[in-house]
Amino acid sequence: MGGPPMPPQLPPRPAVHPVHDTPPHGNGGSTLLRIPANCERSPVMNDQADRPLQFRVLARDSASRARLGRALTRHGPYDTPAFMPVGTQGSVKGVLPDHVAATGSQVILANTYHLMLRPGEKVVAELGDLHKFMGWPGPILTDSGGFQVFSLSDINKINDDGVTFKSHIDGSVVHLTPARSIEVQNALGADIIMAFDECPPADAPEPYHREAVERTLRWAGLCREAHARPRDQSLFAIVQGGTDLALRERCARELIAMDFPGYAVGGLAVGEGFEAMKGVLAGVTPMLPEDKPRYLMGVGFPRDIVAAVASGIDMFDCVLPTRNGRNAYAFTARGAIRLRNSKFIRDAGPIEAGCDCYACVHFTRGAIRHFFFAGEMLGPVLVSVHNIRFYQRLMADIRRALAGGTFGEFRADDPRCSLGPTEPDVESPAPQ
Amino acid sequence: MGGPPMPPQLPPRPAVHPVHDTPPHGNGGSTLLRIPANCERSPVMNDQADRPLQFRVLARDSASRARLGRALTRHGPYDTPAFMPVGTQGSVKGVLPDHVAATGSQVILANTYHLMLRPGEKVVAELGDLHKFMGWPGPILTDSGGFQVFSLSDINKINDDGVTFKSHIDGSVVHLTPARSIEVQNALGADIIMAFDECPPADAPEPYHREAVERTLRWAGLCREAHARPRDQSLFAIVQGGTDLALRERCARELIAMDFPGYAVGGLAVGEGFEAMKGVLAGVTPMLPEDKPRYLMGVGFPRDIVAAVASGIDMFDCVLPTRNGRNAYAFTARGAIRLRNSKFIRDAGPIEAGCDCYACVHFTRGAIRHFFFAGEMLGPVLVSVHNIRFYQRLMADIRRALAGGTFGEFRADDPRCSLGPTEPDVESPAPQ
Repeated sequence: MGGPPMPPQLPPRPAVHPVHDTPPHGNGGSTLLRIPANCERSPVMNDQADRPLQFRVLARDSASRARLGRALTRHGPYDTPAFMPVGTQGSVKGVLPDHVAATGSQVILANTYHLMLRPGEKVVAELGDLHKFMGWPGPILTDSGGFQVFSLSDINKINDDGVTFKSHIDGSVVHLTPARSIEVQNALGADIIMAFDECPPADAPEPYHREAVERTLRWAGLCREAHARPRDQSLFAIVQGGTDLALRERCARELIAMDFPGYAVGGLAVGEGFEAMKGVLAGVTPMLPEDKPRYLMGVGFPRDIVAAVASGIDMFDCVLPTRNGRNAYAFTARGAIRLRNSKFIRDAGPIEAGCDCYACVHFTRGAIRHFFFAGEMLGPVLVSVHNIRFYQRLMADIRRALAGGTFGEFRADDPRCSLGPTEPDVESPAPQ
Repeated sequence: MGGPPMPPQLPPRPAVHPVHDTPPHGNGGSTLLRIPANCERSPVMNDQADRPLQFRVLARDSASRARLGRALTRHGPYDTPAFMPVGTQGSVKGVLPDHVAATGSQVILANTYHLMLRPGEKVVAELGDLHKFMGWPGPILTDSGGFQVFSLSDINKINDDGVTFKSHIDGSVVHLTPARSIEVQNALGADIIMAFDECPPADAPEPYHREAVERTLRWAGLCREAHARPRDQSLFAIVQGGTDLALRERCARELIAMDFPGYAVGGLAVGEGFEAMKGVLAGVTPMLPEDKPRYLMGVGFPRDIVAAVASGIDMFDCVLPTRNGRNAYAFTARGAIRLRNSKFIRDAGPIEAGCDCYACVHFTRGAIRHFFFAGEMLGPVLVSVHNIRFYQRLMADIRRALAGGTFGEFRADDPRCSLGPTEPDVESPAPQ
């Protein structure tokens, strides 16, 4: 079993360490991530100084399991709860790295499945490593490829060894195993890498979920054995088990016994619904070690993120900000707006009043609408920048509330905490 | 006739005013154009202080008609010889304004024809003006729409009143006259606006060129009468006349008598060839006033720009850097390279060694090649950034040579001065 369960009504603790949010755009867009001078020599990290991922919980909410934290990787720090923009093929779509950093993003995600197929992990390694390849000197996480294999590809065969599938790019037959996934991720060189797991659909029958958990456990062990760069890269394990809490508990217990440096909750945001997701998180998250980061994969809408933070999750990734941005859907605290709408033709205001992103500071809604209709790249680029900054402002406000002991009020009062897929204009997330 | 012809063998004069080149990327990409503190109160500008365009020649080459200059508009200064990136529809394609500024660009161009048709000049005006619309607080030039009407549209009728044509967007019938072009440009609000001219093809028969010159002259007068914002915007006239120097001289003489604040040479780079272009420039440029900026429209390759500078031209615009960039063609001093070429798969070098652009500092050739094959926007974006910076480094080096009295050596020795369309990999320019 995981760390000690939280005592109820623990009083809010002040942050012992200031929250170093990356400043918003305007403080130097061309300067990439800054590592605060006091971080690397911070005494709170010293007992973990030889580890590629140092993590500390800095404050806890009194009324939920939410926590404020800070992680330090070989490529710099990130504050938690953290949102990772997705750079599937080695690029956060349409957004140059200085603008990604200017949104306040500190850690980004790239997809092993896509990079393995094109250009191939050996090419990325020969070009430096993934940080050099992406022009991103800060922390990076790669997933294992498992989710994409199960959601994007034409699967030929799954067995205990691994998965044989056809590439979605050229139809060629590819074999992916736990050892191969780790080999690819070792070559890519991200700071955090993920164990290769089996991710069944939400509506899969119980025996499939049970079988997937057993496979995921065996594969986690194989991944740990295969991991050739444990001093550079931190391997996280993934808890599967669908919505069956007993199955989730078995998976979590076994993985915790293997002592990974971090744990992810997988197999959510795959169609199970918001209430079911909250139920699983309420059951699973308390099982996970208190002193290690917890990552909810592929989630989600602001509502989902706030709820998951309340259950004790520290890390998130989702394609929503960039995918919706490319389709002219912009997040605002009052709900999503679609900038192609004709009501914005003469709208001289920013996407969202008060937003400090590059798009809102420099461009009107009317101009952005025009860029979409004229087929100009700047339309997708600007709304992606705004949406990522929207997410990062949400995360910064969550962290500020946790540091100040006001997370309960934040959840109750801030309209962003209820933004979900029922917002009329927002598209649903889908697999990469 | 124009200003006094240059005395032969005038010794090089030191610049009386330092050249304020915008610093390259890395000195603050998010800060837009800076107006040097000593510029607006510079004594050399004081006698023109009430004009919307102040211009001074700061140094002259001893062996050619090339000159170093500085212009000051209501939206800031630019150094000449200047290259203007093209933002046809209100956006330099794919490049956010902070990155445009980081290439060293100080003044940009937008197309009246495109913006008039979509979103319409009234919409742009209601959204602020073109500077606000484009997110570009620095100097902007708009063309008159004439070139696009003659090259892009399905023309129904040309007469002395104007041109009736079908919109290339929706086929609707549009009537464009000198007064209407100025009305549109007054509404857009660029710092420099252009007279509406008739631009025949290079191979048009002599009577057509003669008729076009007469029309261009009449229309220039109508444009001047129609210009409603002479205190904010500077109206440049355009010299037409094809390759017939007598016709060019008549056109130049009549326009100079009307005393415009600047003069353009139009009807070149339309298929006449490099030698013919040089011949026209050698004949026409000396006719133009010494104390006013001279603008060669739609030119061109580095070779063309250097030759035109030698004839006394101060301003240029061309779509080549961005259009070639979108097609993976990158300019280098040794010639163009096509980044889709398989030889770049594992190339860990920058696009061009020694280049200080964002793409070359942060990305490898191999990664950029991958972005093109993966359909990632960052491929076109990065090569466009590099190509604009390539052009601006060329312009900065031309200005430095003029300031230092070494332009002759520069022309003789620098390999960029011979880069033209015969480079195997470079695409030819074409109308917007």
